[in-house]
Amino acid sequence: MVKAKIAVNGYGTIGKRVADAVRAQDDMEIIGISKTKPNYEAAVAHQLGYDIYAPAANLGAFEKAGMPAAGTIEEMVEKADLVVDCTPGGVGEGNKSLYEKAGVKAIWQGGEDHSLAGFSFNAICNYEQAVGRDLVRVVSCNTTALCRAIYPIDKELGVKKVRVILARRATDPNDVKKGPINAIVPDPIKLPSHHGPDVKSVLPQINITSAALKIPTTLMHVHTVNMEVDKDCTVDEVKNIFGSQPRIRFVGQGMSSTAEIMEFARDMKRPRNDMWENCIWPESITVGDKEIYFFQAVHQESIVVPENIDAIRAMMELESDGAKSIEKTNKAIGLYNK
Amino acid sequence: MVKAKIAVNGYGTIGKRVADAVRAQDDMEIIGISKTKPNYEAAVAHQLGYDIYAPAANLGAFEKAGMPAAGTIEEMVEKADLVVDCTPGGVGEGNKSLYEKAGVKAIWQGGEDHSLAGFSFNAICNYEQAVGRDLVRVVSCNTTALCRAIYPIDKELGVKKVRVILARRATDPNDVKKGPINAIVPDPIKLPSHHGPDVKSVLPQINITSAALKIPTTLMHVHTVNMEVDKDCTVDEVKNIFGSQPRIRFVGQGMSSTAEIMEFARDMKRPRNDMWENCIWPESITVGDKEIYFFQAVHQESIVVPENIDAIRAMMELESDGAKSIEKTNKAIGLYNK
Repeated sequence: MVKAKIAVNGYGTIGKRVADAVRAQDDMEIIGISKTKPNYEAAVAHQLGYDIYAPAANLGAFEKAGMPAAGTIEEMVEKADLVVDCTPGGVGEGNKSLYEKAGVKAIWQGGEDHSLAGFSFNAICNYEQAVGRDLVRVVSCNTTALCRAIYPIDKELGVKKVRVILARRATDPNDVKKGPINAIVPDPIKLPSHHGPDVKSVLPQINITSAALKIPTTLMHVHTVNMEVDKDCTVDEVKNIFGSQPRIRFVGQGMSSTAEIMEFARDMKRPRNDMWENCIWPESITVGDKEIYFFQAVHQESIVVPENIDAIRAMMELESDGAKSIEKTNKAIGLYNK
Repeated sequence: MVKAKIAVNGYGTIGKRVADAVRAQDDMEIIGISKTKPNYEAAVAHQLGYDIYAPAANLGAFEKAGMPAAGTIEEMVEKADLVVDCTPGGVGEGNKSLYEKAGVKAIWQGGEDHSLAGFSFNAICNYEQAVGRDLVRVVSCNTTALCRAIYPIDKELGVKKVRVILARRATDPNDVKKGPINAIVPDPIKLPSHHGPDVKSVLPQINITSAALKIPTTLMHVHTVNMEVDKDCTVDEVKNIFGSQPRIRFVGQGMSSTAEIMEFARDMKRPRNDMWENCIWPESITVGDKEIYFFQAVHQESIVVPENIDAIRAMMELESDGAKSIEKTNKAIGLYNK
């Protein structure tokens, strides 16, 4: 079988994880990653044997740093069947003409607007609609987690309204420039935040509001979710619905915070202590008055990674069945490993 | 006029503020404060001229530390008309028999159960019912803030349901022993948290749920409040309702976080940068579908202080009108100062 040729444009927090996850699959391969500067992340990419592509003006800097680039970003795009654009939010938009000119398929991340690709993806919710598409946007970490939790509840119980409060990690663990370090920042101060409405880019039928706070922590987001549902239900029914989902993990056994979830991921020897699943505290699931409440933690750096793999597989028509792709992706990256 | 003789049992975070606030009034006086150990807080109390009372076994230690105690805690209680118990949550309960034996009135804080006093107080909600009472519990910082916001909305628009998510500062600024420092802790993990139900100790008619997260910050709590109301309303109506409240402050003008609110309190030269009011971001007030949303920040160390003063005034029958007491308290402590 000829493997799909994948390029990762932007080897940062998401890009490096997507590259490694593509490498773990047997039906796709990485033909190159791009990096603007020869920094420590580029050095590791070089060590891992990735072909590094860079802006033409910076090729000399890579040469000088002992990690010669394989060519320019334009050259990388030309060689690919599909580019996963993991450049910073808002930057990816500017690359659209590059991809169109080269005639390659493209995936953007949730930092870009829905309209850029015209289709927002979550593997559980709309895999089949992505099959054969040229342009896809994989929704953000928060939206991904919400879609995974809302979709199965809507299917089984009918979701009337969702209200979610997001306690967002202020920034990623490797970022020393951003705050707060001792404050809570309602962000945005005008409600609702974009997170709720963004769920509608995948699940347009869902009535959802959201508010978000920036919190002095780097590890994970925590969602407090309230769902009004159409049918009476029990805590056990909700647990069964979540428990049957391929990318929802129940956390407990002393994991009382995001820090302990990260320690668990480290103990499981997950790459970069990544936690690709929604982490739901089953004890927090509460039902009453046709309303469901629960807490879930979201690993902002990695939760969208398996979704990117499934999006590639759908767009490249490597698999037409979403459930099969999800299982294949999960298995290949080690999500099922104990 | 003979001033009411007030003792503060437990000169910690709340107690020292209550003592200073009592001192600022013209109808009550502090006859003593209690402290178990001659630490830096006791040293400041001594400098401020408070008579310090201590457990009999520790009198020698105070003598040795150069801040001789005026007597034992039992002796202090005997001299008072009313004791404000500011001992740590759960400890105050054990002091009830001491107060009863001495025939003094007593106020406990929100860390004690409602049943201990049989009456839970908030100045806006139920001042008149506290007049002449012997035992009163002033509800906690979070409950106080919720009562102040819910009561006027209920009065004007009818509150059908309240859902509140509390992002709680993990501990007070002077506490170096507690965490988390880089994690989010859903606490309690079982829902609802006690904060919602505790509002019912003051406002039994309110249907309310709550969930709480412990956050790595020491400054203030932040509440994300959702209220379903009976009547259609506009953002301006809600702003007018909050704006007419004596202990609600609108924050804006670049105050985008709890850190900036604290800086504002410092610039206003508030004692200990205390912020006695609910700090509501008016920009966050959102109305739609007969639901109101807003963010409010709560200064956990000081918000209950004026409530303690009003409770004293009601219990000692120094003033029968709640609105007048609130105004007198606010004015005396400097809440109206620009």
